Formats: sequence, structure tokens, C-alpha cells
Amino acid sequence: MKLAVDAMGGDNAPESIIKGCQLALESFPDLKVTLVGNEKEITKFTNASDRIEIVHTDVIIDNDDSPVKAVRRKKDASMVLAVQQVKDGVADAAISAGNTGALMTAGLLIVGRIKGIERPALSPMLPTLGGDGFLLLDVGANMDAKASHLVQYALMGDVYMKKVRKVAKPRIGLLNVGTEAGKGTELTKEVFTLLENSQMEFVGNVEARDLLEGVADVVVCDGFSGNLVLKSIEGTALSLFSLLKKELTSSLKNKLAAGVLKPSFKQVKLKMDYSEYGGAGLFGLNAPVIKAHGSSDERAFFNAIRQAKTMYDEKVVETIQQELQENLSEKE
Amino acid sequence: MKLAVDAMGGDNAPESIIKGCQLALESFPDLKVTLVGNEKEITKFTNASDRIEIVHTDVIIDNDDSPVKAVRRKKDASMVLAVQQVKDGVADAAISAGNTGALMTAGLLIVGRIKGIERPALSPMLPTLGGDGFLLLDVGANMDAKASHLVQYALMGDVYMKKVRKVAKPRIGLLNVGTEAGKGTELTKEVFTLLENSQMEFVGNVEARDLLEGVADVVVCDGFSGNLVLKSIEGTALSLFSLLKKELTSSLKNKLAAGVLKPSFKQVKLKMDYSEYGGAGLFGLNAPVIKAHGSSDERAFFNAIRQAKTMYDEKVVETIQQELQENLSEKE
Repeated sequence: MKLAVDAMGGDNAPESIIKGCQLALESFPDLKVTLVGNEKEITKFTNASDRIEIVHTDVIIDNDDSPVKAVRRKKDASMVLAVQQVKDGVADAAISAGNTGALMTAGLLIVGRIKGIERPALSPMLPTLGGDGFLLLDVGANMDAKASHLVQYALMGDVYMKKVRKVAKPRIGLLNVGTEAGKGTELTKEVFTLLENSQMEFVGNVEARDLLEGVADVVVCDGFSGNLVLKSIEGTALSLFSLLKKELTSSLKNKLAAGVLKPSFKQVKLKMDYSEYGGAGLFGLNAPVIKAHGSSDERAFFNAIRQAKTMYDEKVVETIQQELQENLSEKE
Repeated sequence: MKLAVDAMGGDNAPESIIKGCQLALESFPDLKVTLVGNEKEITKFTNASDRIEIVHTDVIIDNDDSPVKAVRRKKDASMVLAVQQVKDGVADAAISAGNTGALMTAGLLIVGRIKGIERPALSPMLPTLGGDGFLLLDVGANMDAKASHLVQYALMGDVYMKKVRKVAKPRIGLLNVGTEAGKGTELTKEVFTLLENSQMEFVGNVEARDLLEGVADVVVCDGFSGNLVLKSIEGTALSLFSLLKKELTSSLKNKLAAGVLKPSFKQVKLKMDYSEYGGAGLFGLNAPVIKAHGSSDERAFFNAIRQAKTMYDEKVVETIQQELQENLSEKE
């Protein structure tokens, strides 16, 4: 498998990106990577080899760049060239830890949508207390979603969880304000009926407060809601940890006791660390395109690569294409 | 001031409800309460006095009751009778820790909306790390909200924060997926423009991850989004505390160290405890109607009473009515 990597995206680029690639090259003998970015910067950390290609460019898309404008105007940006490699059939998948909106735009404009998918979805795995995690989609690719979009998200999530996370019969939940049928907005009511009548293992409405308890394997929602929930979880966890840190270092006695508990705190933090599950997939495109977290360290970037590789190896995109074809021909 | 209290609503009714009332009667010499509920149950904890009236009823609305049906059919329910007292001018405000949907329905059908407010909003104060808290509205009264609704929420939140929380110039934020103008849904884009052109101190879009940091004093959103954010914050905090508890009691060594830190953990929990700020106001009705948390203990219920009293003393409803009149006549 050949992976195109935006070597310049993310807060710790290119060092953590390249180190993450090296970890992946050690773990997966059949992997090759193309690092796209400033050759001088890249060669500080690695040289080209029979498994590492370097494609040089000076152009970078920043986090402050407007996504659509940036992708249209900066055609030589490291992110755009990496995605273009997939379009050209030179690479099988692309990864970037850079500007999320720009990667969504590049994926959509360059790699293109799977036929039958109206809107791609940005789809991270989030942690659960039990450690299995759940897939949340969409978290921001598509703000004003329609019912058919959410049903397509469910279908894509179903395939992903079966193929990549090896869940035999993924439980599909609809994010809502209550568990009873009939709850929520016009949109959720419509989606509820559609999912109830689908072949999938629909477990009904799921509430935001139960997500971390693992009430479903796949949770679908519009991109606005998903983004709010994702950031509420992140924000609350970060705020709580920072409050705890302040309290636990407020005296010498506290510091000593907290020192004893350090491994336990680390354990809790690790359980909440969703980079363990990989990055956020841009589901619905004609090839795996993965958004690694902007603050990815080498381990997080490695996990995102492993995710892209599993998606490729397990033919996630092809399976989605097939299932859609079957669904479409059933309706005809 | 006379307060009508649903003595039978909530997980700890009637004991915590009545004890909360007693705390309030001790603190506020000008307060009288009417306890509505089963007289035999109530008199286990208090007797009638010149400041405590008891209105007997055997009928109770459960949490499982369908809100609209329950309010229409159980006209003698403790919650409905309490709200009716306000309508009849016998009480100045009403409080219940019972079924949220039923209280919203009773408030709307019996007490009625302020002229100029299209939809009432369920409006809790949420905690911030700095301790000032912020008002989030709506968290579930109105699922498919329109732009004008959110502007009215902002106006009501502005009055509440000035009058009750004594914030001179409340910072109004619009819940969104990014801080830049132009982010979000059709709804948020429309509301952004309307708030920008208002007289209020609009601080722009605020992200869910920054809410606990105190980026705004009032945050407006549609009821679906607000409910998701509220429950995500609650759920994450609860999950984290339960994870921590499990880790910190996993060995004797951990238990000893955690024992030393107990006051610190308590401090953190207290900071996250939003019952300190009172209940959730049902803003937009012609009198203060407060939903106390279902799990309210006596302290939480006392806080909700204090909130209702301050709303009454500071003429929050009248001020909202006035401001709407001024806004309406400006437009004419």
C-alpha cells in the first residue's frame, strides 16, 4: 500500500509526522509513504529510500486559511498535492494533520464523492469507558444536513465498524435529546423512521450524556450537533483536568499525594485519549482520506496511518460502494 | 413574596423539597410558601403555619408521563396546581423538581407567554472555572428554533444576568462550531447578523469547548443543540469522576493518597455543581417558573427558591416585558 502524507500539516510538523511514518514503516512491511512538503525540512528527519518518496513543495495551507479559497488558490500546497496523489492513482490513501476544512474541501473537490453518497462526513472515533470507543458522524463536514444524509452516515459507519473495528453487528444510534421515539427535531424524527425501517441494527435515540458509557457503536447526527458534542466532551475533559491539576498542586501535601496517584491519572487520561483510535475519517470519498488531530504526536500520527491502512486493506470504500449499489438497485 | 411549590416533584420529594423550603423561610423573612401535594406526606416534615400553607392533592405527574397529556388530563396534579396558583394571582412564582416537559407545558398553557416572546426557553446557569457561571438558553423547550427566537433568548438572558447575577454588561455569545463570522448553519448565520445589529454586548460566536472557560455570560442556541451541550458536559464530568474513583480506589496505596486529596476533589466537584446557581428558569412566561434539578437535595432546592425570589424581587419578567415593548415600538 502507498500512502500520501502531508508532511507539513499540524502543530508538530514535520517532525512528529515523519516519526509517525517511521513507526508505521517499521510495523507494516508492505507500506510505502510519499512525504509531501519542504524537502530541506523533511530531510532533517529522514532521507528518501525505496519505501520513502519525497515530493517537494514550499507551499503550505495554514490553519487560518479559508478552506475553499486555500484549496483553489494554493494548488501546490503540501496537503493538496498529497490528496492529488490519490486522485492520480499514485497513492492509495492520504493523511494530513493540517487545516480540517481545507482537507475536507480538497477531498471533496479532488478525490470526489462515492456515487450515492450526497455528503461526506467527518467521522472520529470517540472514547468510551469500556475502551471500545464509538464512531461519531458527522462532526462538521455538513452543517444543514437532511435525513437521507444521516441514513448514509449510518450505512458508512456500519461498514467501517464491521471492517476496521471488527464489530460483528454494529449498534447504530441516533443522537437525540431523549431516548423515546418522537423526541427531537423534524430532522431526527424523520431519520428515526428511516433507520427503524433499515436493515441495520438500529438501537434508537441515544442521549449525549450516555455516549461515553458506550450505548452505541455508531452515532449519527448533523454536522453542527456532532461538532458541538465533540467539543463539549473535549472542553469538559480539558477543563476538569486543568481544575484537578490546580487543586492537586496547591500544597506540598497535595503534591506528594498526587505524585503517588500519577500513574492512575495517566490511566484516566489515556482512556479519554481518542487519538488512540486514529484520526477522523472523511467518509464518503472514493478513497481513504484521514484527518489526524492537529496536535498529533508521533504515536497519534502512527495510529492515523494504521487506520488508513486498515481502511485500505479491508476495502472499506469498495464495500460502501457495493452496499450503496445494492440499496439503489433494490429501490429500482 | 409567595411561592407555590410542587412538593411531590423530584427524586427526593417531599423531604428535600420541604427542607429546602425551610432553609429558604429562615433566610428570607418576607417569604411565604404554599406546599402542594399529599398532606399526610408533607406533614411528616412540616406543619402549616402563618408562613406555610398546604394545598392537598393525591395526584402526581411522574417522570414517565407524556408532558402534554399529563398536564391536560391530570388537572389536579401537584405540579399543575402549583402553577395554577401563579395564574390565579395567589402565588408570585412556582417551582418544581418534577417532569421537565410537563412543567414547560404547564407554564406555557397556564401562566402563558410574555407578549412578544414567541417561544419560552429553558435556561440553566452552567458552571465556569472562574466561578461566575453562564446562562445557556435554550436547552430543550423549543427544538426547531427560528432566528427571531434566539434573538429573544438573548434579550431575556441579558435582562436576567443584569438583574439577578448583577453583571453590568452581559456578554452575549452565539453557540457555534467556530468563532469566525459565517460559521455554522443557516440559522446561526442569520442570528449572527441580527445580534450584531442589536444594542446588546454581542461577543460573536462561541465554541462548545470554551464554554466552561467563561467566554460569555449568556449563550444562545436552539433547544436541540443546547440540550446536547448540557448533557455532553454533564455526561463527561460524571464519566470522568467515575473513572477517577475507580482508578483511585484500585489499591490501598491509592486509597490512602486519594484520602489526602479528598478535600481537593470535593472542591473540583463543587465547582462543577451547577445547582449552586439555582434551577433552570423557564424564561418568557408571565411569571417566574423554575425547574429545579430532578435530583435536588435541600441545598439545591434552596438555591432554586433563592433564584425565583431574586427574579421576583428584581422584576425580571416586568423588565423583559418593558424591553420588548420598547423594541416593538421602535420598529413601528
